[in-house]
Amino acid sequence: MVRAVVLGASGKAFCAGHDLKEMRAEPSLEYYQRLFAQCTAVMLAIQRLPVPVIARVHGLATAAGCQLVAMCDLAVASHDARFAVSGVNVGLFCATPGVALSRNLPRKAAFEMLVTGDFVSAEEARVLGLVNRVAAPEALDDEVEALVARIVAKPGVAVAMGKALFYRQIEVGIESAYEDAGATMACNMMDPSALEGVQAFIEKRPPSWLAAEAPTT
Amino acid sequence: MVRAVVLGASGKAFCAGHDLKEMRAEPSLEYYQRLFAQCTAVMLAIQRLPVPVIARVHGLATAAGCQLVAMCDLAVASHDARFAVSGVNVGLFCATPGVALSRNLPRKAAFEMLVTGDFVSAEEARVLGLVNRVAAPEALDDEVEALVARIVAKPGVAVAMGKALFYRQIEVGIESAYEDAGATMACNMMDPSALEGVQAFIEKRPPSWLAAEAPTT
Amino acid sequence: MVRAVVLGASGKAFCAGHDLKEMRAEPSLEYYQRLFAQCTAVMLAIQRLPVPVIARVHGLATAAGCQLVAMCDLAVASHDARFAVSGVNVGLFCATPGVALSRNLPRKAAFEMLVTGDFVSAEEARVLGLVNRVAAPEALDDEVEALVARIVAKPGVAVAMGKALFYRQIEVGIESAYEDAGATMACNMMDPSALEGVQAFIEKRPPSWLAAEAPTT
Repeated sequence: MVRAVVLGASGKAFCAGHDLKEMRAEPSLEYYQRLFAQCTAVMLAIQRLPVPVIARVHGLATAAGCQLVAMCDLAVASHDARFAVSGVNVGLFCATPGVALSRNLPRKAAFEMLVTGDFVSAEEARVLGLVNRVAAPEALDDEVEALVARIVAKPGVAVAMGKALFYRQIEVGIESAYEDAGATMACNMMDPSALEGVQAFIEKRPPSWLAAEAPTT
Repeated sequence: MVRAVVLGASGKAFCAGHDLKEMRAEPSLEYYQRLFAQCTAVMLAIQRLPVPVIARVHGLATAAGCQLVAMCDLAVASHDARFAVSGVNVGLFCATPGVALSRNLPRKAAFEMLVTGDFVSAEEARVLGLVNRVAAPEALDDEVEALVARIVAKPGVAVAMGKALFYRQIEVGIESAYEDAGATMACNMMDPSALEGVQAFIEKRPPSWLAAEAPTT
Repeated sequence: MVRAVVLGASGKAFCAGHDLKEMRAEPSLEYYQRLFAQCTAVMLAIQRLPVPVIARVHGLATAAGCQLVAMCDLAVASHDARFAVSGVNVGLFCATPGVALSRNLPRKAAFEMLVTGDFVSAEEARVLGLVNRVAAPEALDDEVEALVARIVAKPGVAVAMGKALFYRQIEVGIESAYEDAGATMACNMMDPSALEGVQAFIEKRPPSWLAAEAPTT
């Protein structure tokens, strides 16, 4: 069973966004509406996936590539990674990337990136909240692997319920958020893996996830 | 009259959240729903209190204990304090703590804490926005006291109106927020303590709060 | 055509907010409601302006002056600038400034500023997200100018559509935000300047904005 997804790339860049030649070839409003709707569907699919999605970023992450990093649940970047929402440089404001960016960065920092198209370094991206961790290029895979190992050590059911709740509750007022979260947590607690985990904690022994998750498979 | 509340703890930890033995003793959905609803009621009471609530954190603040810190209006931590939403380690995603955490920290940092269950240091918590100030253990009470002194030097009525408005306006669009805030501020300005405070400022003398607040007592 | 607005001040301060003498002269609820509604209208006008507004901050920015900085799209501060929402010191909680502040800063930092009335330095303001850049007093105008130059190098139509979208989408759920952003971006892409910009990128030549924007003038 898939327990985590890592989005990485080979080659020089993580992702430079849309293929501008493709975009320029068929200039019609309908085509662009369809294109950005498809792009959005991919982006929202990441958030809806019941497992954490980690961006493994090296080289450039620009425009929709920068959006991809912002939409992932977690991101680890190589020291040499650079981030920009550079559409404005060709006269196309990165509107959809801005949706993701403005939900991860402080408002003025997001606006500056969008309106200047300027690059920020991996370290700046970490300080701004766009990535969780920065590693030397040769240590990037180990850093990603360490994060994955932390995640797959937990029961998948708790992580799946938790991730879905996280993005639901963040969009509503705090009282509705707590109502949803309380119901989710009560439900999570009734799961065999949580009952086993808490029991193991009380008995000061390591939990036996497989046995606990077996009935639900 | 109470003008500020400080939440602190004696012993080794600030708060380690729910008693897992108690939770494991009666495993029913109804019980857990009731339990988390009670916990939420306490958390929201902090926000609804008409005086600032300051967390004074030493040692561990985990799960609902970390949530408690996040729900306080302000937080001062000892250098040795450590914070985690560690429920996921026993198979129980910290869903309700996540409500508070995701309203204080950048999104990816909150998600990382929730999905890994890892600890962050007091200094990391400060950088992430979970606490306002960090102090050496022996200076913790002085730091809290300094913050309390700043607060009780203001008229209670302004602080109470301001706190309630702060949490109301943050949940609505900016136009509604401004409408509410403008009405609140006009109302605040008509209070004898504000009229006295502004008058004292004009006359370049210290304000006389007691006289001003007396009629409303 | 105006492409960017810089808000700066001569004299000792950037802006110290309302004139307290004026405020104290006519103490009636109706007057204060009208006054704060006028102030809000100015603040929202900044956000609605179809060009980026940059605060150029030196000296003090207090109360509604601090709000002014927060409401600008971007802000550059001199090293010697200091920021406070100091109304609470005279018994008047900075409710309307809090609307802007809490949308730029982490929650606890905003609350601390509002309830203590304390100053933060330019460097602290940068770390908290209230300003984008800090410069030595003698380099302040160059820093602002560099930011303006970056902005006016882009087609105005993309910047105007992008700014309006940025503030619309930040107030709604992520799915609605993406729907709006996708439609905006498709519309932006059909603009002659975007078509020219993308074409120039493909042909590896600098874009010719004037020619592209000419038909729409």
